[in-house]
Amino acid sequence: MLCDAKRQGPVNLRYDDDRLREECGVFGVFGHPDAAALTALGLHALQHRGQEACGIVAYDGKQFHSERRMGLVGDNFSRASVIERLKGHAAIGHNRYSTCGDAVLRNVQPLFADIDTGGFAVAHNGNLTNALTLRQELISTGAICQSTSDTEVVLHLLSRSKKRRIVERFVEAIREVEGAYAFVGLTNDMLIGARDPVGIRPLVLGRLGQAYVLASETCALDMVGAEFVREIDNGEVVVITEDGIESHRPFPMRPSRPCIFEYIYFARPDSVIGGRTVYDIRKQMGVQLAHEAPAEVDVIVPIPDSGVPAAIGFAQESGVPFELGIIRNHYVGRTFIEPEQRIRALGVKLKHSANASVIRGKRIVLVDDSVVRGTTSKKIVQLMYEAGAREVHMRIASPPITHPDYYGIDTPDKVDLLAANKDLEGMRQFLGADSLAFLSVDGIYRAVGFDARDARAPQFTDHCFTGEYPTPLTDQSGQTVPRQLSLLAEVG
Amino acid sequence: MLCDAKRQGPVNLRYDDDRLREECGVFGVFGHPDAAALTALGLHALQHRGQEACGIVAYDGKQFHSERRMGLVGDNFSRASVIERLKGHAAIGHNRYSTCGDAVLRNVQPLFADIDTGGFAVAHNGNLTNALTLRQELISTGAICQSTSDTEVVLHLLSRSKKRRIVERFVEAIREVEGAYAFVGLTNDMLIGARDPVGIRPLVLGRLGQAYVLASETCALDMVGAEFVREIDNGEVVVITEDGIESHRPFPMRPSRPCIFEYIYFARPDSVIGGRTVYDIRKQMGVQLAHEAPAEVDVIVPIPDSGVPAAIGFAQESGVPFELGIIRNHYVGRTFIEPEQRIRALGVKLKHSANASVIRGKRIVLVDDSVVRGTTSKKIVQLMYEAGAREVHMRIASPPITHPDYYGIDTPDKVDLLAANKDLEGMRQFLGADSLAFLSVDGIYRAVGFDARDARAPQFTDHCFTGEYPTPLTDQSGQTVPRQLSLLAEVG
Amino acid sequence: MLCDAKRQGPVNLRYDDDRLREECGVFGVFGHPDAAALTALGLHALQHRGQEACGIVAYDGKQFHSERRMGLVGDNFSRASVIERLKGHAAIGHNRYSTCGDAVLRNVQPLFADIDTGGFAVAHNGNLTNALTLRQELISTGAICQSTSDTEVVLHLLSRSKKRRIVERFVEAIREVEGAYAFVGLTNDMLIGARDPVGIRPLVLGRLGQAYVLASETCALDMVGAEFVREIDNGEVVVITEDGIESHRPFPMRPSRPCIFEYIYFARPDSVIGGRTVYDIRKQMGVQLAHEAPAEVDVIVPIPDSGVPAAIGFAQESGVPFELGIIRNHYVGRTFIEPEQRIRALGVKLKHSANASVIRGKRIVLVDDSVVRGTTSKKIVQLMYEAGAREVHMRIASPPITHPDYYGIDTPDKVDLLAANKDLEGMRQFLGADSLAFLSVDGIYRAVGFDARDARAPQFTDHCFTGEYPTPLTDQSGQTVPRQLSLLAEVG
Amino acid sequence: MLCDAKRQGPVNLRYDDDRLREECGVFGVFGHPDAAALTALGLHALQHRGQEACGIVAYDGKQFHSERRMGLVGDNFSRASVIERLKGHAAIGHNRYSTCGDAVLRNVQPLFADIDTGGFAVAHNGNLTNALTLRQELISTGAICQSTSDTEVVLHLLSRSKKRRIVERFVEAIREVEGAYAFVGLTNDMLIGARDPVGIRPLVLGRLGQAYVLASETCALDMVGAEFVREIDNGEVVVITEDGIESHRPFPMRPSRPCIFEYIYFARPDSVIGGRTVYDIRKQMGVQLAHEAPAEVDVIVPIPDSGVPAAIGFAQESGVPFELGIIRNHYVGRTFIEPEQRIRALGVKLKHSANASVIRGKRIVLVDDSVVRGTTSKKIVQLMYEAGAREVHMRIASPPITHPDYYGIDTPDKVDLLAANKDLEGMRQFLGADSLAFLSVDGIYRAVGFDARDARAPQFTDHCFTGEYPTPLTDQSGQTVPRQLSLLAEVG
Repeated sequence: MLCDAKRQGPVNLRYDDDRLREECGVFGVFGHPDAAALTALGLHALQHRGQEACGIVAYDGKQFHSERRMGLVGDNFSRASVIERLKGHAAIGHNRYSTCGDAVLRNVQPLFADIDTGGFAVAHNGNLTNALTLRQELISTGAICQSTSDTEVVLHLLSRSKKRRIVERFVEAIREVEGAYAFVGLTNDMLIGARDPVGIRPLVLGRLGQAYVLASETCALDMVGAEFVREIDNGEVVVITEDGIESHRPFPMRPSRPCIFEYIYFARPDSVIGGRTVYDIRKQMGVQLAHEAPAEVDVIVPIPDSGVPAAIGFAQESGVPFELGIIRNHYVGRTFIEPEQRIRALGVKLKHSANASVIRGKRIVLVDDSVVRGTTSKKIVQLMYEAGAREVHMRIASPPITHPDYYGIDTPDKVDLLAANKDLEGMRQFLGADSLAFLSVDGIYRAVGFDARDARAPQFTDHCFTGEYPTPLTDQSGQTVPRQLSLLAEVG
Repeated sequence: MLCDAKRQGPVNLRYDDDRLREECGVFGVFGHPDAAALTALGLHALQHRGQEACGIVAYDGKQFHSERRMGLVGDNFSRASVIERLKGHAAIGHNRYSTCGDAVLRNVQPLFADIDTGGFAVAHNGNLTNALTLRQELISTGAICQSTSDTEVVLHLLSRSKKRRIVERFVEAIREVEGAYAFVGLTNDMLIGARDPVGIRPLVLGRLGQAYVLASETCALDMVGAEFVREIDNGEVVVITEDGIESHRPFPMRPSRPCIFEYIYFARPDSVIGGRTVYDIRKQMGVQLAHEAPAEVDVIVPIPDSGVPAAIGFAQESGVPFELGIIRNHYVGRTFIEPEQRIRALGVKLKHSANASVIRGKRIVLVDDSVVRGTTSKKIVQLMYEAGAREVHMRIASPPITHPDYYGIDTPDKVDLLAANKDLEGMRQFLGADSLAFLSVDGIYRAVGFDARDARAPQFTDHCFTGEYPTPLTDQSGQTVPRQLSLLAEVG
Repeated sequence: MLCDAKRQGPVNLRYDDDRLREECGVFGVFGHPDAAALTALGLHALQHRGQEACGIVAYDGKQFHSERRMGLVGDNFSRASVIERLKGHAAIGHNRYSTCGDAVLRNVQPLFADIDTGGFAVAHNGNLTNALTLRQELISTGAICQSTSDTEVVLHLLSRSKKRRIVERFVEAIREVEGAYAFVGLTNDMLIGARDPVGIRPLVLGRLGQAYVLASETCALDMVGAEFVREIDNGEVVVITEDGIESHRPFPMRPSRPCIFEYIYFARPDSVIGGRTVYDIRKQMGVQLAHEAPAEVDVIVPIPDSGVPAAIGFAQESGVPFELGIIRNHYVGRTFIEPEQRIRALGVKLKHSANASVIRGKRIVLVDDSVVRGTTSKKIVQLMYEAGAREVHMRIASPPITHPDYYGIDTPDKVDLLAANKDLEGMRQFLGADSLAFLSVDGIYRAVGFDARDARAPQFTDHCFTGEYPTPLTDQSGQTVPRQLSLLAEVG
Repeated sequence: MLCDAKRQGPVNLRYDDDRLREECGVFGVFGHPDAAALTALGLHALQHRGQEACGIVAYDGKQFHSERRMGLVGDNFSRASVIERLKGHAAIGHNRYSTCGDAVLRNVQPLFADIDTGGFAVAHNGNLTNALTLRQELISTGAICQSTSDTEVVLHLLSRSKKRRIVERFVEAIREVEGAYAFVGLTNDMLIGARDPVGIRPLVLGRLGQAYVLASETCALDMVGAEFVREIDNGEVVVITEDGIESHRPFPMRPSRPCIFEYIYFARPDSVIGGRTVYDIRKQMGVQLAHEAPAEVDVIVPIPDSGVPAAIGFAQESGVPFELGIIRNHYVGRTFIEPEQRIRALGVKLKHSANASVIRGKRIVLVDDSVVRGTTSKKIVQLMYEAGAREVHMRIASPPITHPDYYGIDTPDKVDLLAANKDLEGMRQFLGADSLAFLSVDGIYRAVGFDARDARAPQFTDHCFTGEYPTPLTDQSGQTVPRQLSLLAEVG
């Protein structure tokens, strides 16, 4: 997603989640009579990866059918009339969380183009780090862009390719882009899946009877009853047709380097990556954290829901009771009107409340998966003291985030990242906790199963902690890149 | 408008108007602080030219703002919040009646493109007769089309032009297209107006204080209080900037040949063309018709509303009383559910009812402006007999329509045109009238102010009556043109 | 309709029609499998009687089904799913124009009540002149009102009646109310129609095969193909069951006294009242007017659409040509945003424009059916002069309106009625016309077919011209009547 | 809520929660300038008590303002325009889960009536067990009911009361009703709160500066920053005016007997009842259960979210690790279209998925708070085996539900209650678990803090387990009660 404007400040009270956001989840199926219904279910299983918009494109042998909507899958793809319109044995779908302030329908995926060999629909998880530069070149040679999405750049490159076969065109297109991507593409006769050369964003392959399924995570395979086959390799392009599946590897071999944040926060706990459930890995982060930074306390309290697995690990390792000291309200409206006579900590209360019986008079460890700006963490620490906590020790099950992401995770500007601007003691004072500790970089590698980070060939994309980006950042360094992507401010 | 599908049969009872439809009305204003509000008013005055969709694009010096909606101007541009969002001193707008079955938002105009010199928005009245051919060439060289509209072809040609200045690019683009057009275009610093080389579709220039206005008809100038300056010439491109107006004539000089149907049916009666009101010309058609085909009757009855001026002329010339023998219901919903026990002539009754006191026991002349398929006329003749008419003489104030249009008027296929398939007596029998007469071709030229049609250089575009088309019809003759414009069937 | 608040001033530019408004049209059918579809069609034919809201209640032998909506019939009852939900062989419907500023769904008719003998749905055209007084009594004895409509009072009276049979209960209820009414009511086994003791509001009976139909005007019978049987008499209650129709006359015999404004303005021209079409009567008003107030002019111009029949009569009688000197735009959105740099006479231009060729240099007679506040007439006179009229003579085909109505016509307060505040010369000066004349009271009686008004027993309800009200006006005289009908200001 | 129809079977795939549903949450505030904004926040905190509809009525000293909507508080009361319309220093609000199939706006609370002393708005949590009987009497004496809600009965009784003061009228009304209720009522000058004679449904009082707050649970006080004052007593009516608070006790003194299900399932874990958090009590249920029915297993797995506190208690007491073996998807759309080729256990997977790493090869205890029909529990047991569980032992932290509720909890018919139709071994076989145990009745009393149930004067309303109903069930025993509440089937 390319952004043409800074995000607008909210006019009324919003939940300040202070969470990292992933932009997307993707899903595709080929060779099944219920392709669109399965895609809706798969996207529902991937809803945690993006809640702002969703879309499905299906192909019925003659025409592509598209539905793209703002909002949740379950709200938009629950009517039979919608699913019936999405006819066909092949479909792809997309969930999106936008990092842009202006969320408009023209940017909702899958995107589609009529090309001279037929139609091509594509959905993308990730972010291209030279999209602005490519877009500028395309427009200067006469291309007309219908969206402000980086994904459209791939459509234009493919459309302009002189190659004859669509797969060759697609490969030619992705050879020009840099950055992170997991693509699913749909043509008149094939489903395509592709991961970037180091495999930053995830993509897995499943099988459902005679049909093949592609999805961002295994939890979507489980939802539709598909059997897990394997992960798509880094730098691999798979092509699924009526004749089966074939694999292309158009890039020089490189070691895989998946994004560590899938383990820490993004993936659903029951998804399996590298043979282990994400839940299990997160518990290990809690175990490592208990080793590295123990605390003499009465109770271990997770910040729900993301801090729960690490807190369970921490509690088991330390032998201190695990308790739900914070209750989360899952009924989330977008905003509320703030009373003029402001209520203390109202924002955080919309989602979290203190469970006094667990807190009062106790020394507690609060466990969270990560800290971004620290604004919400600070209010939760206050909530704990107000509920009667005697001591509050903050434990974060990942290292301090010191660098922004450019691969599809919505991180704030560096100036707003707590750990980029304060040392540990400064952070502790900001949060108001009695003590504060983060899991070490090596600690997180240990939780995932390595002895330590390999500094010469890091096993993960971990620039948020280390500043080491796995790809060029062309758009960041270029000087000719325009600040404004489109002159059109469209609403409807 | 390029159509990718045959129109679907209606599932429930629709008004069968059996009317010709024009596709569009256009409006533009430059140099006025209320540009969008004026454009909404201008489009309201032009609403008779298209009721399916409407759109406005305004430019505020930094950004273009777009609102495109299905439905009437008054329903879509009546809220202050909408008009306020369309900021700027320059705006263009468009009313559309679609000839395509699938009306989708992506085809609603004005269309917009970011090009490397800035933004370009365009609205179009007319139809390009080589758009399919050009579109095919564009796609085969990598263009991605966002609509199925012929208008987008102009955007792509302009975007690909190597010229530096936007006006030169626009001229280069329109030199490649054939057919009928009145364009209004909006860039970062100018308003452009253009008419095709023979001036098939209308476009007039007005002045409102320091601001300039372009509109399809003078009635839109009257609405916003603008003074009529002149008609844009055939083959002329006008460019309005802060420095004033300049005129370009990029085509070889040819005589003007406007569409005769603007006089017969499309233009609003109070609009002025060539110095005369359309009402006056239509009355003259009735006068000529009374000369050519008098009838011994008791009363002259117009088919409302379009037959009224000719009926007044016919009545005045013949000295027979003019009476409203048919009452029209102006509250028009889209459709009604037909009762299973069908009501006789229900379709026509939704809009027309017999005024018995005028009809009963009388010999009447029914006057209409034109006959297309004859289906509604036939039912109205029946309605007259059922209301007690003794004799019904049908008089049509224009010649028989024998050929389809390709310049933006929605005519049915030749097989459905009454006059293309039957001789006069056959038509009379079909309609069930006691007598039937059409105005002659020379008669209509006389009504407009000529002695007769000049067969070597016809003064009007009149192929519907004569079969003589003023431009090549490339898409009609070509063999390579695809039947289906887009593989995407989109709803939302 | 009882009003709890003064109408709010418009925030943006509205059409100022300066027209009288009728509140309602009613329709009912009993004994037809397509009852709801027929009711939708009948209401469409009666749409001119009310455009703000509409509703249908059908009974399927077990349950009543209700749909009540804001807006036009054709927009709300065009989907098969809606009509199919309104199951049953009997249905009633209602069109409403509200005289209240706050239009809320709870006031949309038909209203419904569960009573101990079954269900009762009712729709009402007219206004009860003691409804406020009755409502106050009902509430003080424990009734809970769900609407602020005067119609609900009848439901409560009926519900509280100790009579056993529903017809007796209904009669007991309407014996307590004063004012004007045409009711259609639907119970578990009958369709009821009723007109007030002097028959102010119209109601006609038709037959469609074995089914009976009730409607405000004959044009609704024509629409559904029903045969006109007769008008319901003043003071008559008809009860239609499976066994046929029976008639009750619960009031002392009195001469009929229908509202003269049905002839002047409200009824559709093709409707038949007393054996003559309304069009014919209106033409006669023009004829009488030409007798009473001739003018030496070149052309007769109607103010469309309501002035057209009288203008035709005036033109035929005076031998001066009839011309459409004003063109009406029928595409009416609710409002437009007024440009800050105001356009001269913009309000009236949204609907009316001058047809210059007919006006320029001419002496004209402008014919309208009536004048209320005179605000629009004044602007139209100006429009004529601006279009070049040499002389403008205003002729009104009904007498001056000097008194407000309390029987279901929305008249402004007396202080806003032009004729209640100025003499003829004062009105002429206000309108800015060269001359002004109204039809005399006896003239209008002559047009309708009497020699003159019978002062001792006036043949029509004509208080707007004479100040003589045919019923008590209890709510107007009472001192205890509350100003505010409900304490609830509801939106949804 | 009175139900006029059996719930319809779903046409497409729905989450089968197999949960008990409470009908309502109520909230009221008096004496605060942000009354409506606070009420929206309070209702958000009570959203778990009802998600189908919500409404707020505010009083501004002159008028009552009402907004009632289908859906969540956060979706309906988040716009400033809505809150601003709800002007006033006093407001009441309501969340509703309907037990009726037909959810229509006319049943959404608060309900309102104009009575002769002013306006009265009321919101109700609970169910009246003689409402049908009373309703029948009211209608037979002329009352017109606007809803099918039992709450409206109270409005009618109050409206018909001959007492002068509104509080006396309200007391007279509630003396006639039987069953369970927590009412909040709003008049022109007071906020009223009332609990039924044995206090089945909860209601608490809070203070926010000078303002008073009433709410179903303390979590709503916490949300708005109000201080907890006390619970409203059983049989108490509190009246809050500008002069402060006064308490009425219009019923004979009886021991309190609150509904045990508030502790087991309905109340939010952080709410405080009787001085203890609900979380703490639920953990104790798990502790008791571990005592009564231990199991030799490797891991304790809660069915999220309601089974979590009891599972934590069970784990702590038994010393077996607590793990999230089931992951819950909180993004809940209403329904999905089921693929024609059905997916195994799809319904349950929409919300729950197995976390394989915790389950595979393990002996597990599954802990849930209660079992209703057992349909979902059965699928979850299967899910566990499919994920590789070696043994699955089901432990339910409350006794078997053998009797339906009539006090506002939506229980299925007795024939659908698992425990009403099978013995323990039968249930075990149905669920497919290796073992099954429920907490005993005395066990649950112990968890709440008593030694045992007092059979002569049970401390709680516990008929679901014991069949002992605390009030008469007039409507159940009566023979004259109609099956169908209203003849009107309304949609809009």
